[in-house]
Amino acid sequence: MKPVKVGICGLGTVGGGTFNVLERNASEIARRAGRPIIVEQIATRRDNPSCDTHQVACTQDIFEVVNNPEIDIVVELIGGYDTAYELVMQAIRQGKHVVTANKALIAVYGNEIFKAAEEAGVIVAFEAAVAGGIPIIKSIREGLTANQINWVAGIINGTGNYILTNMRDHKRDFTEVLAEAQALGYAEADPTFDVEGIDAAHKLTILASIAFGIPLQFDKAYTEGIARLLPMDIEQADVLGYVIKHLGITKRTEQGLELRVHPTLIPKERLLANVHGVKNAVMVYGDAVGPTLYYGAGAGAEPTASAVVADIIDVAREMATDQNNRVPYLAFSEVAQAKDMPVLPMEAIETAYYLRLHAVDRPGVLARVATILSDQGISIEALIQKEATEGELVPIILMTHKTREASMNEAIRQLEALVDVAGDVVRIRVENLDEQ
Amino acid sequence: MKPVKVGICGLGTVGGGTFNVLERNASEIARRAGRPIIVEQIATRRDNPSCDTHQVACTQDIFEVVNNPEIDIVVELIGGYDTAYELVMQAIRQGKHVVTANKALIAVYGNEIFKAAEEAGVIVAFEAAVAGGIPIIKSIREGLTANQINWVAGIINGTGNYILTNMRDHKRDFTEVLAEAQALGYAEADPTFDVEGIDAAHKLTILASIAFGIPLQFDKAYTEGIARLLPMDIEQADVLGYVIKHLGITKRTEQGLELRVHPTLIPKERLLANVHGVKNAVMVYGDAVGPTLYYGAGAGAEPTASAVVADIIDVAREMATDQNNRVPYLAFSEVAQAKDMPVLPMEAIETAYYLRLHAVDRPGVLARVATILSDQGISIEALIQKEATEGELVPIILMTHKTREASMNEAIRQLEALVDVAGDVVRIRVENLDEQ
Repeated sequence: MKPVKVGICGLGTVGGGTFNVLERNASEIARRAGRPIIVEQIATRRDNPSCDTHQVACTQDIFEVVNNPEIDIVVELIGGYDTAYELVMQAIRQGKHVVTANKALIAVYGNEIFKAAEEAGVIVAFEAAVAGGIPIIKSIREGLTANQINWVAGIINGTGNYILTNMRDHKRDFTEVLAEAQALGYAEADPTFDVEGIDAAHKLTILASIAFGIPLQFDKAYTEGIARLLPMDIEQADVLGYVIKHLGITKRTEQGLELRVHPTLIPKERLLANVHGVKNAVMVYGDAVGPTLYYGAGAGAEPTASAVVADIIDVAREMATDQNNRVPYLAFSEVAQAKDMPVLPMEAIETAYYLRLHAVDRPGVLARVATILSDQGISIEALIQKEATEGELVPIILMTHKTREASMNEAIRQLEALVDVAGDVVRIRVENLDEQ
Repeated sequence: MKPVKVGICGLGTVGGGTFNVLERNASEIARRAGRPIIVEQIATRRDNPSCDTHQVACTQDIFEVVNNPEIDIVVELIGGYDTAYELVMQAIRQGKHVVTANKALIAVYGNEIFKAAEEAGVIVAFEAAVAGGIPIIKSIREGLTANQINWVAGIINGTGNYILTNMRDHKRDFTEVLAEAQALGYAEADPTFDVEGIDAAHKLTILASIAFGIPLQFDKAYTEGIARLLPMDIEQADVLGYVIKHLGITKRTEQGLELRVHPTLIPKERLLANVHGVKNAVMVYGDAVGPTLYYGAGAGAEPTASAVVADIIDVAREMATDQNNRVPYLAFSEVAQAKDMPVLPMEAIETAYYLRLHAVDRPGVLARVATILSDQGISIEALIQKEATEGELVPIILMTHKTREASMNEAIRQLEALVDVAGDVVRIRVENLDEQ
C-alpha cells in the first residue's frame, strides 16, 4: 500500500524518540500498519544529537510542515500552549491529521480542537498525552467500551511518584528529594507543574472525558500538591497500613462527577501502592469488567514515542475511514453536556481522612478533639497519640470514616481554633480503591 | 446510524453476561459505538435464569443464527472445538463477522479460521479469548505497535493463580485447595485444562502470535502444571525472596522463540508477584516502551462479556472499512513463516533454576552435588541445607544462575543417579522479569 508520510514538529526528547523508533522499527511497523510510515519532514530549531536525520528534509519553521502538501499527518511535539495551539489548528485547517503528546493543550483547548477537527474531517490522536507509553486512552476508549465506568484513579505524574517513593524509602524530606530529582533530570528546574498536581490534573481531565463522555473541564479540577507532606505522615500512614501516593481520581456519583488530584493514603496491598519511582499506573473500574490496572513508563523519550507512533499507525489505518466509523475523539459520539454530569465542588465529595494535629499534652484535649469531630458527624476509625516529652506538643494522628469534605473543613476550622492545638491541622484524603 | 445486529450463540456464563451487559449499558454503548447494538437472536439449549430474554427471538439451533440474513455479527460463546469450529466456519462462509471468546478454538484452528475470514472479507475478533476482561489483545496489537516486543509473561489462568495464592497464604496442599476451588466454582470438575497449563498455553499461543507476528503454533508450546508443587517449595521460595506463579512466557531470542507455561519463581517485589486469587495480569516488554503490565479479571460472566462487547463495537465500526485498513487478525499484515522464527525446544531455553532434592545426611554429599552442577557449567547462586533429624533425609534447596535447560536436564539425571539422593529432584524455573 501507499506509504503514509508524517511531519515531526519538535525534535526534543519525545520528538527524537519518535524519529528513532520510526527508523529503528520501520520494518515491523510497516508489517503492523500494512504500509510504510515515512518521516517526510522534521521541523526543529536545533539538532538532537541522538538522531541521525541527514536523510530527512529539515526546516526551522514548523509551519512549513503544516503547509507541506506531501504530509498526511502532523506530529506536534513542541509542547506548551500558544505555538502548539496555532500549529494544531492550522494543521486541521489544512486538512492534516494530527498526533500530539501535549496534555496541557488537549486538557485546556481540546474541546475547541476536536470541534475544528470534526468539521475538517480529520483525526486528532493524543494517546501519548496521558501516562506516556501506557495505552490507557485506547484501553478506556476502545477496550472498555462495554462498561459504564465508575471511577478512574491513577499515578499519572512520574516526578511526583519518584519523590514520594524516595521520601518513603529513605525517610527524607521533600525539598531534599526534589533537589536530587532535579539533579537527575527527573524534575524540571521549575517543578510546579509536577509537584503541584497541575500536570496530573491535565491528564486526569482527559481521562475523565473519555471515561464519562463529558467535555474537557480542566478549570473544574481540584489540585493539591505534595510539597507539604512530611516524612512523619508517610511513616504514620505506614503504621496504619497505608502508602501515600499522589493520585488523580475521577468518580461518577449520583450527584455529579469528582475530579481531583491530591496526596492520598491507599492500602499497602493494592497494586497501585506498589508502583514505585517514575513509573505510572492507572486503575479503571468498569461496571462489567470490575477493576483493571495499566502500568508502565509515564514519560521518557521512547516510552512516549511508543504511544505517538501507535497513534500514527492508527491514523494511517483510519484516515481512509468514513468519519462516523472512527473512534470519537472523546470516546462518545455525543458528548454529554456539563450540566448533565456536573463536576462537583470539593466540599461535596465524600472520603475518609487522615489527620495530623499537634496538641498541648493536657487532660481533656482528646475529648475536645473527639467532640468536634462527632458534632460534625465524623466517626473516628483509628487514633495514634504519640508519647509526650515534657512541655512538648504531642502529635495526634487520626483516621476517620467517610465523611463529606464540607463537614471536615468545618471540623478542621474548629480544631485549629482550639487553644490546645498548635498550628495547622494536616489533612490527607484516604481511598480504599475497593469500591464499585 | 443504522443499528448493528448480533446473534448470540450460547447463553451460558459468558453468553448470559454478554446479553446482560448489552441490555443494561445499551445507551452508553450506543453513544460509544455511534449506533445501537441490537441482540437480534439468541441460540441456546437452555434458559439462563440471570437473563430476561423474552423480547428476543430464541432458537435451539445455533445454525439458524448463522443463516439469519438480518444478523451482521455472530457471537460464538458455546466453547469447545468441534461445533464451535463448524459454527465459526459456516458464519464466515455466510459473510458474517465473528466475535468469539474461545481460546482453544483460536489457538488450535486460528490459522485456518483467519485464512477463511480473509478470503471472505470478514472480521474475526477474539479479545475475550485471553485474560478475560483485560484488553490485552488490543493493547499489544494496537497500543504497542511501535515496538519490537521482546517478551510477554503472564498469569493467564485464574484457577491456577487462585490455587497458588491459597497454598501460599494458608500453607496448604495442592489437592486440598483444588477441592475447595472446585466447591466454590473456581475450578472445573475436571481441572486438567487449568492446572496442567493447557488453558494458559492456548492463551500464550495467541499472545505470542500477536506479539511476534508468527502463525499460531499451540502444538509447539511447552506446558507443565502446578499439581506437583509442595507448600515446602512455596515456603523456601519465600525465604529466598520469591513467589511461585504459574506463568505463560514467550520470548524472542536470537536462536528463536520461547513458548512455555510452567510454575516460575519471580521476585516478590514484582507487580506480577502481587497479583492474587483469580485475577490475571500480563507483562509485556517492548523495546521502546519498556515493561508494561495489564491487570484485571481473567474470567467470569461480565468481565469476559466486557471484552466480547468491546469486540462487537470494534467490528461494528470496522465492518464498513476496506480490509486493508483493518487491524490484521494476528497484528501483522504478513505473518512471518515459522521457519523465520522457530519455536525453540525446551532444551534450548536458558533460565535460572530452583532445585529441591532430598539427600542422606552424610559427609561429602554436598560436594558431590556441587561437582555435578559445576561439570555441567551450572553455577550456584544460593543453597539452603535444612537441619537433619537423626536418620532422616535432608532437603537441600539450590538456586542456580542462568543455564541451558539441556545442561540442567543432564545434571538432574546425574543427581538422581547418586546413591545419596532419594527420589526425584524437583526443578522450578526462575525468571527475574527485569530483562530487556
